[in-house]
Amino acid sequence: MNDKVVAGIDIGGTKIAVALETHEGERVAARRLPTEVELGPERILENVSRSVEEMLAETGTTLTAIGIGCPGPIDIERGLALSPTNLPEWIDFPLVDTIKNRFHAPTVLDNDANAAALGEYFYGAGRGFKDILYVTISTGIGGAIVCEGQIHHGVGASAGEVGHTIVKPDGLLCLCGTHGCLETIASGLSIARRMRETLAASNGKATGNLDEITAQTVVEAVKNGDETAQNIWDETIKFLAIGIGNAITLIAPEAVVIGGGVSEAGELLLEPLRREIGKNVTMLPIEDVQILKASLGSESGVCGALILARHALKKMHENVY
Amino acid sequence: MNDKVVAGIDIGGTKIAVALETHEGERVAARRLPTEVELGPERILENVSRSVEEMLAETGTTLTAIGIGCPGPIDIERGLALSPTNLPEWIDFPLVDTIKNRFHAPTVLDNDANAAALGEYFYGAGRGFKDILYVTISTGIGGAIVCEGQIHHGVGASAGEVGHTIVKPDGLLCLCGTHGCLETIASGLSIARRMRETLAASNGKATGNLDEITAQTVVEAVKNGDETAQNIWDETIKFLAIGIGNAITLIAPEAVVIGGGVSEAGELLLEPLRREIGKNVTMLPIEDVQILKASLGSESGVCGALILARHALKKMHENVY
Repeated sequence: MNDKVVAGIDIGGTKIAVALETHEGERVAARRLPTEVELGPERILENVSRSVEEMLAETGTTLTAIGIGCPGPIDIERGLALSPTNLPEWIDFPLVDTIKNRFHAPTVLDNDANAAALGEYFYGAGRGFKDILYVTISTGIGGAIVCEGQIHHGVGASAGEVGHTIVKPDGLLCLCGTHGCLETIASGLSIARRMRETLAASNGKATGNLDEITAQTVVEAVKNGDETAQNIWDETIKFLAIGIGNAITLIAPEAVVIGGGVSEAGELLLEPLRREIGKNVTMLPIEDVQILKASLGSESGVCGALILARHALKKMHENVY
Repeated sequence: MNDKVVAGIDIGGTKIAVALETHEGERVAARRLPTEVELGPERILENVSRSVEEMLAETGTTLTAIGIGCPGPIDIERGLALSPTNLPEWIDFPLVDTIKNRFHAPTVLDNDANAAALGEYFYGAGRGFKDILYVTISTGIGGAIVCEGQIHHGVGASAGEVGHTIVKPDGLLCLCGTHGCLETIASGLSIARRMRETLAASNGKATGNLDEITAQTVVEAVKNGDETAQNIWDETIKFLAIGIGNAITLIAPEAVVIGGGVSEAGELLLEPLRREIGKNVTMLPIEDVQILKASLGSESGVCGALILARHALKKMHENVY
């Protein structure tokens, strides 16, 4: 008899990761495909499905459940992608039905930040904690709450959006429509924008092409002792410590796991962030809240999708027995 | 055979409320005693215990479990009061053991805000919702999260402290030790202080004794069309909408229930608060989050203590069977 496996599918704007894992938790196959956005959702899903079929054939395994992570907004209940920014053509696209009808296996969808949070909770830096706040600082700032192994979805399945908490009253207008969100200061795009603006304002002292500045450039400049970059970075830390600190004061999680491109700055980010959060959080023993870098990198999403598949399997068994 | 009842004890700085309820949920007796702080914890607890015994005798009932709400800080695990501000002599006082040894019944302790939140969730404005954020705006600002019938305690049993989230970076120093907490702007004490400061600064235009100004005075002045009071109130609403809005963005609860003395302002508070929160919360359908006035008034604590007693009973049964 074939080994039974679950499949995880992590759909991103540029890449799609797929993995198979046995019911015992052994990874038996994994692949990455480019997201050929121009092909449209049907063709892309067809390619993903064919990949899964090939992996099943190669490993001689039987598929029992599928988990999918996809950029939001999504409709979890109905299993739809609702034209994510990176996948604008996916308008009310029936992601779950498309996959479920192909494989005749229970299929669960969640957004990419929630999937990544589950991945870190079960396989990564969040292992062993009762609950975690996951924060991803990349182009934007996303977040998710995992409590006793389950995503806390909340109204609109949107809980954990620390990037859109207001940390600077009457601050800059955010893409979300309100003013002074954490994302307007501390996202990768905002860090780069603030650096560009500061340099442009400093009367031509700047050399090089301002357009090429990214959050990574700023981090490199901090490491090289650049004073302007250090000021930008200090302000980034200050507001991250307010936003994440507020989330800790509200949720009191055992750990905060920080992923996304900006977290690659490592201790340059975490050391001052822990210190500033320590000043901002006064209602609980902050030394009991671990503030950690995510450990799975780009694997967190597909790991989380595998957990979603396990949830689908468990739910089916609960309904049957 | 005697009817079985649970007891709820709500310890406050000025009053203690006690109630008995049958296992079927019928309230059979209730009393209020003054908190004679000068007697010290042992004597006070002796008086409370005697009250419970009298109520049991009068109603011919048998006590099966006890729930206690007490101002924080407390140690829930060990059942201790840790010298609350209003009860400074209660230093590491073994509240749970004292009551448990007297009545030989399972006894559970939680802090007063958590107890009030449970009360509103099961008996008050929070009924019928999956999860709520409870906010109490009185002298200070407290809060609690109830999720599927249980308090979300978190690290240090301190989750839900919306009053100590930072809403004004580099703002006033709070008693908690950090700067710009919501409590420094929008608590009853802070509303009154801001009004006093504004009047004192307005070059002797003020009449009457500034020391007599309370949050209630400010609310009355707003109702009477006083412009200074209106400005103070608008700023109060603005920052409450940031703090509570941020909590909604993070937790996405089905309802926010607002209690405490300042909530007695009713729609004068709630109507503009809903409008401003609507502007601040962009990541979820805010019309699906109810923002409500607490409905139990000073009864919320003892109602919640009765729920704590039921939790104690349930836990005992789970351990036995």
